[in-house]
Amino acid sequence: MKLVYFDNSATTRPHREVVKEVSDCMENYFGNPSSAHRLGLGAEKKMKQAREKVARLIGALPQEIIFTSGGSEANNTAIKGVITPGCHIITSKIEHPSVLRVLQKLEKSGYEVTYLSVDSRGIIKLEELENSIKDNTKLVTIMYVNNEIGSIQPVDKIVEIVRKKNKRVKVHIDAVQAAGKIPIDIKKLDVDLMSLSAHKIHGPKGVGALYVRKGIKLEPLILGGGQEWEVRSGTENLPGISGFGVAAEIISSNLNEKIEHVKGIKKHFIERLKEIDNIVINSPYDDNHIGNILNVSFEGVRGEVLLHALEDYNIFVSTGSACSSKKVSEKNYVLPSIGLKECHVEGAIRFSFSYINTVDEVDYTIEALKKSLSFLRRLKK
Amino acid sequence: MKLVYFDNSATTRPHREVVKEVSDCMENYFGNPSSAHRLGLGAEKKMKQAREKVARLIGALPQEIIFTSGGSEANNTAIKGVITPGCHIITSKIEHPSVLRVLQKLEKSGYEVTYLSVDSRGIIKLEELENSIKDNTKLVTIMYVNNEIGSIQPVDKIVEIVRKKNKRVKVHIDAVQAAGKIPIDIKKLDVDLMSLSAHKIHGPKGVGALYVRKGIKLEPLILGGGQEWEVRSGTENLPGISGFGVAAEIISSNLNEKIEHVKGIKKHFIERLKEIDNIVINSPYDDNHIGNILNVSFEGVRGEVLLHALEDYNIFVSTGSACSSKKVSEKNYVLPSIGLKECHVEGAIRFSFSYINTVDEVDYTIEALKKSLSFLRRLKK
Ligand SMILES: Cc1ncc(COP(=O)(O)O)c(C=O)c1O
Ligand SMILES: Cc1ncc(COP(=O)(O)O)c(C=O)c1O
Repeated sequence: MKLVYFDNSATTRPHREVVKEVSDCMENYFGNPSSAHRLGLGAEKKMKQAREKVARLIGALPQEIIFTSGGSEANNTAIKGVITPGCHIITSKIEHPSVLRVLQKLEKSGYEVTYLSVDSRGIIKLEELENSIKDNTKLVTIMYVNNEIGSIQPVDKIVEIVRKKNKRVKVHIDAVQAAGKIPIDIKKLDVDLMSLSAHKIHGPKGVGALYVRKGIKLEPLILGGGQEWEVRSGTENLPGISGFGVAAEIISSNLNEKIEHVKGIKKHFIERLKEIDNIVINSPYDDNHIGNILNVSFEGVRGEVLLHALEDYNIFVSTGSACSSKKVSEKNYVLPSIGLKECHVEGAIRFSFSYINTVDEVDYTIEALKKSLSFLRRLKK
Repeated sequence: MKLVYFDNSATTRPHREVVKEVSDCMENYFGNPSSAHRLGLGAEKKMKQAREKVARLIGALPQEIIFTSGGSEANNTAIKGVITPGCHIITSKIEHPSVLRVLQKLEKSGYEVTYLSVDSRGIIKLEELENSIKDNTKLVTIMYVNNEIGSIQPVDKIVEIVRKKNKRVKVHIDAVQAAGKIPIDIKKLDVDLMSLSAHKIHGPKGVGALYVRKGIKLEPLILGGGQEWEVRSGTENLPGISGFGVAAEIISSNLNEKIEHVKGIKKHFIERLKEIDNIVINSPYDDNHIGNILNVSFEGVRGEVLLHALEDYNIFVSTGSACSSKKVSEKNYVLPSIGLKECHVEGAIRFSFSYINTVDEVDYTIEALKKSLSFLRRLKK
């Protein structure tokens, strides 16, 4: 068995076509897209194509796509771009740090933030949302799919409630873990802002996008030369952006088949996990959880230990989100929020799939898990 | 004659080694540098190597280098990272928009900004700087080399004056056009913050760095997972960063020879420009101007027109900075600030060289200029 990469929610392996596109742009479209000459125009044309492809992934208009350096910048830009001094913001307790940290800092400078709790499935309570919306609420920022347990928020209902209660509220959806994993029709969803990241869909690292609904004026986070319709300055990262376009195009094609394939992997994995004792599945196979994330607590072992044991089998997984995985100070907050006991938080492993993974890889992983656990659990006793 | 690219201050063609490095990272080091497993550690090791290489370019310690998405983000981060509410900031009138626009916006929210004027060479007056420093001055932000006329600011003297007058002032240098074109020993220069950009030294687009002197605590611009010592969050753009490292390493080696070569190109160009009538050289060959930028006003023609005429000869130049080149609303502010008459501003062309350019390319360009000018100027009459 070569290499089983089950850490696709941390980052994905760029497609060969993406690598080729990035190289091609670096070699043949190296002009500054803002330059007035032919080399600039050629680069700009490439930008346009990429923008169309990324827009298509979520059903947006090309001019509604602002390229950023990634999902984190997109989240920071969305939040800081629409708020007004001292306003009220609603979010959930299980957001990505690129949302939570921004809001925590804003709280220190006079903003009011409501952190919605989630139920045992990791889903916000719509009633709590409805009751939280106030006159001075300016923004509701909720993630589409959680990066650790894969819970899917009911975005359509969230928007419906928000629109009904306060028409001035903007809705931002962090769709970094959703795009390419759920069919997204942004016009039907009727959200105002949406964050995307290329490296989660086999695109390049260091590129993302923010969907900004036509007509919304955003305060830029990065000021300068006025690129991206004045919303995001800085010489455009054409190779990255064009690679993002290719990745978006590839994942968009036959998306439903890809989703079914990934669901099949998860279903098979859960089925086979029955052969292992004393486990808790934190992201069941159902409509409330994404097909590509399987979070499991293994009793009697620490997640990190099991992670490294699996590494000996060339299987790559994670204990939580990548950004917190090496920081001891960083306590996991997602798993406790769905009511997990400390021991189950400690023994949690996230397996995250891509449509390029196979059922065979699951079988191999199950065998590796059995061997590792029988050794590690015996050691513990 | 194949392609004469004299627009290296807008952006450069990535070196083959850089393209290779980017591809290699995408294919073989695709792990998330923050992941706890081997693929993450491998990526992190690559990060470390790149950090060392970029640090070496300016004589910094690796831990003083914060990777960003480019020079614009580095400038925004530096400024917003050190200021305190309502403080006083000093800059010059010829800074890049990624500095000026930030400061203009800050002025609207209660900050005080002094814009130093420049003399006919494009150099600030040290006395004016000295007189501007006040008790509540928190930041002096000055570019090392101007991107349009190549004027070199006396950074060492600037720092000396600042330190003498107010020890609490931080000095930020936008060195995007200086790194790899001037030997930089940041410890000797004694500055606090310095912005760099990869794509100006044959590295990838969408990557830059901010030097932050050890001990300085910066407010992050982008919050999230806490990457880059909590100063710059977001999944690290390893391929870009590693490509930046390679570009930094290449340009660092025999830097003085490279500088001499580029100076030779400029000298030869100016010598041969004597064959053309009615021109004004806005960036002479002297110690106050960088060797790789030659800004010339051609009387009786509009810069854009000449630019496109040269394009027919496969020669690529620009009229000003790339980011303003296609925006009609964006008036050139650098050339007027050195006292250029309107007609000379309109007829200005920036030739910007790299050490991969040759003297032959200059000769070819001179011939193309002669032909284009004789046609265009006749047309005008
Ligand atoms: C839900 C979510 N939002 C935002 C991000 C940040 O995206 P990026 O890594 O592109 O900065 C991530 C991943 O890191 C994520 O999982
Ligand atoms: C002097 C100067 N500062 C900053 C920048 C911005 O750098 P970047 O293009 O990497 O955002 C540029 C170039 O665009 C520049 O010439």
